[in-house]
Amino acid sequence: MSELNLRAEELDAADGLAPLRSRFVLDDVVYLDGNSLGALPAHVPDRLADVVRREWGELRIRSWEESGWWTAPERIGERIAPLVGAAPGQVVVGDSTSVNVFKAVVAAARMAGEDRTEILVDATTFPTDGYVAESAARLTGRTLRAVTPARVPDALGPRTAAVLLNHVDYRTGRLHDLPSLTAAIHAAGALAVWDLCHSAGALPVGLDEHGVDLAVGCTYKYLNGGPGSPAFLYVRRAAQSRFDSPLPGWNSHADPFGMSPSYDPAPGAVRGRVGTPDILSMLALEAALDVWEGVQVGAVRAKSLALTDFFLECVAEYAGDRVESVTPVAHEERGSQVSLRCEDAGEVMKKLIAAGVVGDFRPPDVLRFGFTPLYTSFADAERAARVLATVLRG
Amino acid sequence: MSELNLRAEELDAADGLAPLRSRFVLDDVVYLDGNSLGALPAHVPDRLADVVRREWGELRIRSWEESGWWTAPERIGERIAPLVGAAPGQVVVGDSTSVNVFKAVVAAARMAGEDRTEILVDATTFPTDGYVAESAARLTGRTLRAVTPARVPDALGPRTAAVLLNHVDYRTGRLHDLPSLTAAIHAAGALAVWDLCHSAGALPVGLDEHGVDLAVGCTYKYLNGGPGSPAFLYVRRAAQSRFDSPLPGWNSHADPFGMSPSYDPAPGAVRGRVGTPDILSMLALEAALDVWEGVQVGAVRAKSLALTDFFLECVAEYAGDRVESVTPVAHEERGSQVSLRCEDAGEVMKKLIAAGVVGDFRPPDVLRFGFTPLYTSFADAERAARVLATVLRG
Repeated sequence: MSELNLRAEELDAADGLAPLRSRFVLDDVVYLDGNSLGALPAHVPDRLADVVRREWGELRIRSWEESGWWTAPERIGERIAPLVGAAPGQVVVGDSTSVNVFKAVVAAARMAGEDRTEILVDATTFPTDGYVAESAARLTGRTLRAVTPARVPDALGPRTAAVLLNHVDYRTGRLHDLPSLTAAIHAAGALAVWDLCHSAGALPVGLDEHGVDLAVGCTYKYLNGGPGSPAFLYVRRAAQSRFDSPLPGWNSHADPFGMSPSYDPAPGAVRGRVGTPDILSMLALEAALDVWEGVQVGAVRAKSLALTDFFLECVAEYAGDRVESVTPVAHEERGSQVSLRCEDAGEVMKKLIAAGVVGDFRPPDVLRFGFTPLYTSFADAERAARVLATVLRG
Repeated sequence: MSELNLRAEELDAADGLAPLRSRFVLDDVVYLDGNSLGALPAHVPDRLADVVRREWGELRIRSWEESGWWTAPERIGERIAPLVGAAPGQVVVGDSTSVNVFKAVVAAARMAGEDRTEILVDATTFPTDGYVAESAARLTGRTLRAVTPARVPDALGPRTAAVLLNHVDYRTGRLHDLPSLTAAIHAAGALAVWDLCHSAGALPVGLDEHGVDLAVGCTYKYLNGGPGSPAFLYVRRAAQSRFDSPLPGWNSHADPFGMSPSYDPAPGAVRGRVGTPDILSMLALEAALDVWEGVQVGAVRAKSLALTDFFLECVAEYAGDRVESVTPVAHEERGSQVSLRCEDAGEVMKKLIAAGVVGDFRPPDVLRFGFTPLYTSFADAERAARVLATVLRG
């Protein structure tokens, strides 16, 4: 047994989060793709079966009230709120991330006022944010400019309405400095909209503490809500009365069953709702959040950094001459993934998956490995690096 | 046994669709709220359990390809297409009805061109369509005017960009004349957007035949997809290349995994997609559509009219002096529900539900009874009228 093998054993033995792994359905595969689709929490199938057979099958329409379906979007929002540093009443769940980006960017532009004619977007963003920001700009009569997060402070000006940024870069795993960028955006009089897809559930976000105006995030990555589970939207309490949604569906009406022909928006986070929520996906997510019982995000972050440190060390030891990490070494710049660049990365990932190590490939040349501290072990990290070295040696 | 009891028995015995009832989970309740939430198809729980345990739990990320998750929105769209009279390649599933109304109305206004500055909306619409149309008008620089469907022909003019209409009025159950209204809209050079929430799965729609430009519809009513199951969007083939979505998420990109920073919309119905689809809700819907195997919409319509005729007859016989029907008598003006007006309708519905007859209440004074020919029997109709009479007599 190698020295790194032994180290992995020791690290796992000392890991206070290790028992959480039993809350998930896992097998012999080293699953390092939880940053794309989180693993299945073990109790979710039974809970969802009850939703289907009893709540839908037996209670049918009565479940909207009796089973709490109607209030699920805000109730689940409250479960997510502490994971992203939000006090109650500011997070609502529903729709896809893309749709929530649209709500947030349009609403931010409107809050900024007519004189502020430019929206800035992260030039390194996951594409959908850029496409949707472009649409939001076009529909609100603004221009859109793409800048890298590092250049945002220089790009800000009196015409800046809002800035849409990613907390963690989906490709490189770089963690951006949310507190200082938000402060710079506010100093310029603009609004900060953060995409938390790759940070929610992986590291502390501190939305309230850092004064973020609006945020959106994904629930099927580190929150393990299931494939395509609904996204969340955070609207800072102080901004809620000015949140003027471009998607004013009946679910966000102050009196949704009054069936009034005129729109009167509900107060609070509910204003971010649109149409009838997709209950099956939503209640699977609600159940999935039970795995956070007793878990502190700070502990998750500590393990995440230890895992990625260790993985980088193993990769350097086993395959340092064949791959290059594009994920920052500095902890304050690292999310919960490691991205390695190598030749023929697409083919390499296929072989890795065939050999029981699941990450994913992002063009043109990046291997992504996501580390979910709730269920990833140090032994997983060591084995992934070892198998990678074998694959790279052909 | 009364004469109407015997008639119900005879009608059920002669009903070719009667065996379909066994495809659903039903009990002793007379469930006449399938126009709000369709009953659970009996095979859906097992199918969804397999999606959760095997596709998510075991295959995890591989299911996007191997289990066909990625292509589910258009695949399920193809299942719905024949039910609404659409040839392949024009229907896609995803997002809520409200969000799809937004896509359709904005896209229609853009297709109409800058000179057409007014959008018309059904003044009797389910409220969300009006709210969303108002938002679409505001964002595209148009004005919005609410007119009743009957007044649409007079309201059309050279400035009309698009008209958003409901095929069946959610409150009264009135069926509007889709062919002639669409023709009138086209004669004025405008685009017709139809909301099929209360007609899809209940009666023939004939989207292609009647030249409808865009349509949206619900899948959790007569299509029994489950609570909040994703809606569908129809974009007429001839209009697809001009469909300029206000929600251009990465799922509608021509090369979604190319991760290009610039948006290049996919051809065809896929252009109506936005973000990552909610797979659990979506695949429950897909399974639910299996109940349509071997079923013709024409036969469903014939039974629907027979059921509502019979229910109206029973109501007239048992309680004709205490309620008034607001649903048209003429077949060509009737959807698949019967709406009765009476005093204290909210209280009456509570008592009906307690007595095992489930309809719903729509303010201010309407009792709604939806008839789903796939599982509603003539005996149900007779019993509902009989219990209603008992409740009304106090």
